[in-house]
Amino acid sequence: MQQERCSSSDRPLDPGCLQARDAERSADRPACAPVDFPVAVVLPAGGSGERVGLPTPKQFCTIFNRPLISYTIQAFERLPWIGTVVVVVSKENHDLMLNIVQKFNHTKVNVIHGGTTRHRSIFNGLQAFCSTSNSLTPKPKVVIIHDAVRPFVEEDLLLKITLAAKEQGASGAIRPLVSTIIATSSEGYLDHSLERAKYRASEMPQGFLYDIIFQAYQRCSEFDFEFGSECLHLALQYCGVNAKLIEGPPTLWKVTYKRDLAAAEAIIKETLSRSACIIAGAEAEAAELAKTLQKNLNMMETDVIPCAKESNAEYLSKTQNFIHLSTTGSNFLGVLEMVKHFEDTDHTRLYPVVIVWVQLNMTKQSVDSQKTDELAAFRSLASEVIQGNVLLYGIQIEHTKVPEQWERSVERLTQITVALIRDRNAALTGQLLHV
Amino acid sequence: MQQERCSSSDRPLDPGCLQARDAERSADRPACAPVDFPVAVVLPAGGSGERVGLPTPKQFCTIFNRPLISYTIQAFERLPWIGTVVVVVSKENHDLMLNIVQKFNHTKVNVIHGGTTRHRSIFNGLQAFCSTSNSLTPKPKVVIIHDAVRPFVEEDLLLKITLAAKEQGASGAIRPLVSTIIATSSEGYLDHSLERAKYRASEMPQGFLYDIIFQAYQRCSEFDFEFGSECLHLALQYCGVNAKLIEGPPTLWKVTYKRDLAAAEAIIKETLSRSACIIAGAEAEAAELAKTLQKNLNMMETDVIPCAKESNAEYLSKTQNFIHLSTTGSNFLGVLEMVKHFEDTDHTRLYPVVIVWVQLNMTKQSVDSQKTDELAAFRSLASEVIQGNVLLYGIQIEHTKVPEQWERSVERLTQITVALIRDRNAALTGQLLHV
Repeated sequence: MQQERCSSSDRPLDPGCLQARDAERSADRPACAPVDFPVAVVLPAGGSGERVGLPTPKQFCTIFNRPLISYTIQAFERLPWIGTVVVVVSKENHDLMLNIVQKFNHTKVNVIHGGTTRHRSIFNGLQAFCSTSNSLTPKPKVVIIHDAVRPFVEEDLLLKITLAAKEQGASGAIRPLVSTIIATSSEGYLDHSLERAKYRASEMPQGFLYDIIFQAYQRCSEFDFEFGSECLHLALQYCGVNAKLIEGPPTLWKVTYKRDLAAAEAIIKETLSRSACIIAGAEAEAAELAKTLQKNLNMMETDVIPCAKESNAEYLSKTQNFIHLSTTGSNFLGVLEMVKHFEDTDHTRLYPVVIVWVQLNMTKQSVDSQKTDELAAFRSLASEVIQGNVLLYGIQIEHTKVPEQWERSVERLTQITVALIRDRNAALTGQLLHV
Repeated sequence: MQQERCSSSDRPLDPGCLQARDAERSADRPACAPVDFPVAVVLPAGGSGERVGLPTPKQFCTIFNRPLISYTIQAFERLPWIGTVVVVVSKENHDLMLNIVQKFNHTKVNVIHGGTTRHRSIFNGLQAFCSTSNSLTPKPKVVIIHDAVRPFVEEDLLLKITLAAKEQGASGAIRPLVSTIIATSSEGYLDHSLERAKYRASEMPQGFLYDIIFQAYQRCSEFDFEFGSECLHLALQYCGVNAKLIEGPPTLWKVTYKRDLAAAEAIIKETLSRSACIIAGAEAEAAELAKTLQKNLNMMETDVIPCAKESNAEYLSKTQNFIHLSTTGSNFLGVLEMVKHFEDTDHTRLYPVVIVWVQLNMTKQSVDSQKTDELAAFRSLASEVIQGNVLLYGIQIEHTKVPEQWERSVERLTQITVALIRDRNAALTGQLLHV
């Protein structure tokens, strides 16, 4: 199931899924990752992002309070066979980048200063490996060049790019053309259109034998440094290497416009919403509700566990979404235990965790009397845990023995729960919703 | 201000903004729309959408319960100088399309059957104008060909395309290339890369003198019908017309992948959230709160009006977002009046309206006692009005005379209000949130 999801055509980066696959690979099939040579990454991130229409360069725009570039870095950092990630930024963003590296604990990253153009920045990144005063050893066999604004690059493609680069000297990801390409006359009229089938869009990542791309940059002209757009072209022109081209998935696309940020956010949201853990408690009614909820949440992978104790650490680390059921009179102890566990395991560092605290009211009386105090306590708890990247929402549901009414209530509970998990809206934390 | 917003680089379709501009143009500067000849549109919508990764063809995927193609149709239909919009669909989607036309009251649309390829469908669309049994007269001077999945096309560009087509015989929108284009060898290696500056991506819309494009299709080969991708190319090859190329905005992009639907939704949400109307009521405290709220909502254009009576119809029709303030003890009469007005004026046909009902509690006692009944009544009202595309949310805020506390409360009220307006989440209607 997990595997199948991982290969769907427009599929996003799935942190859970990726963790699972990595674990599986290292345990069962070491032969699938035949990278027994040093591989490094150069990530030019000097762009100003004027096309996004935002004051912040797009690589530093945030999704869930985390800059886009951190997602991209993580896509490499999670792979054991990738060593160093050299991030090349402009001088004015150097401190910002160091803060990002620290905050999101990017242990493989080296931040260096860029040049005035993309090619100069890449060359700076490559030179970092041969500087004697630098600790970036060993010099990699293969270097992957990628864009900071393509956060959804997958291990599968990176492997192909890396192995082809080792074999051929250079390799690059391509995509079919979405539009027809036309040549224009100088007066702005159609000259001719290209035959679409013969051409491809050249994307990132690209891979090179380190010595090849380094030599290409040493040999290339000032004009190339200033106006060149394509590393593959330099490898061809200055080292005679025809790059191997590898078709990549559509998720490789480059976050270019403001709308692309919304698309990236939607992909991350969808990915984070693929699974949930239902914590049912001991009461029979809660256990019953948990079962129905699990059935209703059929678009997600769900586990039901009785409590959030340490023995369930495996379940707690598997997902970013928790539905915590409790009956009237329960306190927030279960929620607090979970939050403590997340702190200890650093589980919310990269992605926010959602806890939907479902209170099952068995008697109608208890609702009105408890109300005000409980609400205040819940809101205060929510505003506390949000500091640790935990989004806490509450839903109250009245128990009833009328089957149809109960069914409708649980259906509504499902809808609201899904909406809260999918949206991860910080402004609505601490609210006690009603079914 | 309005004008400035309308010209930002990645800016979306703004229904309010567009209405305002249209009104302005027809009243004050008729000379700006010098289209004094018949113009029609052909919208091929036969695509199967396999690239989106969804079971529904992408032109029929919905955003706020409205298919994408309806947004595209509306982009043309709102322009008085455009006559007929011929929508070409596959046989199996004919009834679906007729339902869409009826539900969203598309008065300029004619639905006809497509052919087996895009070019055959377009030719079918063009032939609809010369069929004697057809009421689609007069034959247009200029025909615009567009994609059903590019919903954000603006009048400005359509005017340029139309006038250039009249002048030159053919015209088309272009965009700079985002990626380098490369030629591949038959073995999958890089052959050469194109010089990016010389080429452009050919986009939609395209415009043609009707006689030119009709003749091109009459003369073109079976091979063109089957494999051709570019109408501009046919006009060049068979009629010797070099199309005038016009640079379009980035919002022209084609909804191709699932993530593009999320991007389109984000654009529509942003556009719908640009303005709001605050209905303050008569009480002094509510009027005071309205003022502060207006100041806090500085990212939106806001009007404050005392009540939702008919005399305020102008304000009610200007926006899709309403913040209705009332003090303790108020009933929902004001909300009901507004909903009635929307029904009468068909204001929610194309886009959902959000009403945030803010209850300002002056005395702490009233909250607990009223609670259960009021909540039930509010939820029942919300589930009723959602049928008419009105999303009703409630927020309770406790009045306090402690300035800092009050300031924090209003800040929180602002955040929640903005979140509700921006997200337009149907699952959360009928909830009474607390500040």
